[in-house]
Amino acid sequence: MSSIKRIDHVAVVVDDIDQALSFWQDGLGLEVTHVEDAPTDPSIVAFLPIGDSSEVELVKPTSMDSGVARYLKNRGPGIHHICFEVDDIVQCLKRLEANDVKLIHKEPVIGTGGKRIAFIHPHSTHGVLVELYELTHMEPAIRLERARKLADRALAQGQVVATGVLGFLRALRDPGNGREDGDEHDG
Amino acid sequence: MSSIKRIDHVAVVVDDIDQALSFWQDGLGLEVTHVEDAPTDPSIVAFLPIGDSSEVELVKPTSMDSGVARYLKNRGPGIHHICFEVDDIVQCLKRLEANDVKLIHKEPVIGTGGKRIAFIHPHSTHGVLVELYELTHMEPAIRLERARKLADRALAQGQVVATGVLGFLRALRDPGNGREDGDEHDG
Repeated sequence: MSSIKRIDHVAVVVDDIDQALSFWQDGLGLEVTHVEDAPTDPSIVAFLPIGDSSEVELVKPTSMDSGVARYLKNRGPGIHHICFEVDDIVQCLKRLEANDVKLIHKEPVIGTGGKRIAFIHPHSTHGVLVELYELTHMEPAIRLERARKLADRALAQGQVVATGVLGFLRALRDPGNGREDGDEHDG
Repeated sequence: MSSIKRIDHVAVVVDDIDQALSFWQDGLGLEVTHVEDAPTDPSIVAFLPIGDSSEVELVKPTSMDSGVARYLKNRGPGIHHICFEVDDIVQCLKRLEANDVKLIHKEPVIGTGGKRIAFIHPHSTHGVLVELYELTHMEPAIRLERARKLADRALAQGQVVATGVLGFLRALRDPGNGREDGDEHDG
């Protein structure tokens, strides 16, 4: 009996989202559909869907004092973690604890998109950082709110954000003009 | 226009498949459905499906002189690469080359399951080892042949294989008791 439903995403830590997009977007032909602040670890996350049900997430740390920033400093850019959708995250965490698996979150916390998430410690997974999540009904509203806050900060306060995601942010704050309305950067 | 269809698998390098299964199988509830020799890099691969269309692959090097063995030595166990299924691997490689992406395989080679595969160099992906593959019609026959050769070697010659996959291998060589009911192979 498995409650693991699918690979939701693979998260890639990058030091520059624009440079990373030269591969993921220009080379592979994927598209950024969404950008959001990560609530659990200070970072900006760009979402690139793969098919109908999975994503690659490009994660750029926005603070020196975070898990992803330390990962980037110690190991360089690369795959940071893999995330699985589960049916029942509480039951899943209980089964893991019963198997002596070390958990970073013993209870679910709220992650990107309002999902209930928990991370498993890589000490118990032989080096793989694993995230589990269970969907909640809050996801659409929370995703939009978080993306708008990021857009406000990026556009009004001049925070440096990758040019590859600026079109997305502008469209979000100015829905009348569509997604791509210029190529200015930090202007 | 993207020709990336889905995340096919995430490959995890392990130094001991049994120990790794204590997390992936006992903790997460996934199951090993298939074991195979990897043709491109000396290693045994255990396949654990996630939902309908993706897998986690546990890769144990069987030679000291291979890419996965060097990875394990230098970085320890962990996520080794991510693999995407593509519609047309030749076209995809051409587009990557046109975008100055460094390729490990400029032409597809035959990987596990008889698939046409190619690896992209992590220098061009900001640290992520990416595999692409395109399905071929040879997959079922090649998968069975490779698994049987591994079973022969493991069971007849006493090679150490994880106990967690021995049931799979025995069933393959003793069709009366297991899931495979095909002809004898390799005498």
